[in-house]
Amino acid sequence: MSLLVVGSLALDTIETPFGKAERTLGGSATFISVSASYFTKPVRLVGVVGGDFPPEEIEFLESREIDLEGLQVKKEGKTFHWHGRYHYDLNTRDSIVTELNVFAEFDPIVPENFAKSRYLCLGNINPELQKKVYLQMKGPDLVVADTMNFWIEGKYDALMDVLQYINVLIINDSEARELSKEYNLLKAARKIQSFGPQVVVIKKGEHGALLFYESEIFFAPAYPLETIYDPTGAGDSFAGGFIGYISKTDDTSYENMKRAVIYGSTIASFCVEKFSIDGIRELTHLEIQDRFNEFKKFSDFQAIELET
Amino acid sequence: MSLLVVGSLALDTIETPFGKAERTLGGSATFISVSASYFTKPVRLVGVVGGDFPPEEIEFLESREIDLEGLQVKKEGKTFHWHGRYHYDLNTRDSIVTELNVFAEFDPIVPENFAKSRYLCLGNINPELQKKVYLQMKGPDLVVADTMNFWIEGKYDALMDVLQYINVLIINDSEARELSKEYNLLKAARKIQSFGPQVVVIKKGEHGALLFYESEIFFAPAYPLETIYDPTGAGDSFAGGFIGYISKTDDTSYENMKRAVIYGSTIASFCVEKFSIDGIRELTHLEIQDRFNEFKKFSDFQAIELET
Repeated sequence: MSLLVVGSLALDTIETPFGKAERTLGGSATFISVSASYFTKPVRLVGVVGGDFPPEEIEFLESREIDLEGLQVKKEGKTFHWHGRYHYDLNTRDSIVTELNVFAEFDPIVPENFAKSRYLCLGNINPELQKKVYLQMKGPDLVVADTMNFWIEGKYDALMDVLQYINVLIINDSEARELSKEYNLLKAARKIQSFGPQVVVIKKGEHGALLFYESEIFFAPAYPLETIYDPTGAGDSFAGGFIGYISKTDDTSYENMKRAVIYGSTIASFCVEKFSIDGIRELTHLEIQDRFNEFKKFSDFQAIELET
Repeated sequence: MSLLVVGSLALDTIETPFGKAERTLGGSATFISVSASYFTKPVRLVGVVGGDFPPEEIEFLESREIDLEGLQVKKEGKTFHWHGRYHYDLNTRDSIVTELNVFAEFDPIVPENFAKSRYLCLGNINPELQKKVYLQMKGPDLVVADTMNFWIEGKYDALMDVLQYINVLIINDSEARELSKEYNLLKAARKIQSFGPQVVVIKKGEHGALLFYESEIFFAPAYPLETIYDPTGAGDSFAGGFIGYISKTDDTSYENMKRAVIYGSTIASFCVEKFSIDGIRELTHLEIQDRFNEFKKFSDFQAIELET
């Protein structure tokens, strides 16, 4: 089924204890659309880049069959640039440089061809723009969105407003706590559901993810990695794998969303194994399926009734 | 099958944001043996208390059919007393008072009747005493042990020594990191396995538990609780449920140890729902089985091959 992705495209400079990558391909829309492209077609992208955006990265996105009709290229401007440095535990990072550049004036326009996309994934951007995109759509079946502390703190009312239109909110544990003002994640999820989304996915990094689907709860394991090279894009890869799988199967049932969470976790686990987007540039269906099956193995056990 | 438990018996004063309990029943051997008693008989206890240990708590332990032949009662002394205060997030706590009392001179003697117990659970005590208990046994089939940062820091060599005799080490994530000097829990577990134990269980509180069984890894969910009243004894209840189930089934295979981890998590989840040991004083087999089945539900999903 058709999927529309909106978000940022960036050139990131990333430092981790394991190395440094300069001006590599980044941005939420990039990670989401590349991840989703392993599952579903067409993936349609709405975003903005500057004249410095490398032509070979345009070619790469096209090679993933991502439809770039909605990509605005501002030749006179520069692409959004973020420079981050991760600490030793890779859970905390400092933003050294954040240059919004052409992203500061981003006015997302959904091409006529894209407006009937059945699935919509709103990457982590200003909630006012998320709503603007939604209102240009002709009634998508499912709207998935991400947000972050920056918008919870700076655009709370706009975020609460756009949450009305969102079916699945995917956020991390600290964001869930901040948005709900509840420490306990169960209470946090229930409160966020009361804001609009019927489904809340809380990502907990190395501790896996929780899927709250109406009154149900599913506990997804994390893939046990000995070394994480670069966490950049892990959350967006998760969202892309999640919505890509749902779009492919065209099934929003609880049972299928559980699998979507595992596919999201699968793509995210590939993402963090290499720098920047390199971990998900070239995956095979076999690699994805094998790792999905490992997730099953890690969490599977057979219940036997206790004899008394 | 027969199970021997050694560890502390205490009178705890506990403060949490939800209330306070004064001089209530505590101690690692208490939580372990009571938890195990829901699965297996006989549970045999080796420990020490003072003349102030309430007779009604002796009766309670006897009502759980725990064999107290190895319980030393030092009438002239006082029972180990700990006074702790939990912070709002319940993950951190301050020790206000720690009075070892009769526990300071604890010299564990395994009665002749107990020496042939098939299963041995060494609660969190001085590793020199853990070894002393082990050496009094006549070749138990499986030795499970717990330890803590206090012994890792203060008795490292003795701990490394006793690890040779231990088949299953159950510790929490921060202890695993400290013992192995590895941040990554996968690397930490592998290193701890190289110290002796073939099996390492890492407890991660609200994030569940990891079972490392030889080269296998199992990811157990946590029970999603809206309110945790008192985390005291959760780790010991986990260990008691774990070894109690293994002792009952007399099966140390990987498949069965996965179930043991879930039963451990089950008993721990009951433990934290009330103050002190009250959450596990009176459980029914039906309650235990129902909650075990909920764990299954929380982590179960059906894998479907990805069509390409």
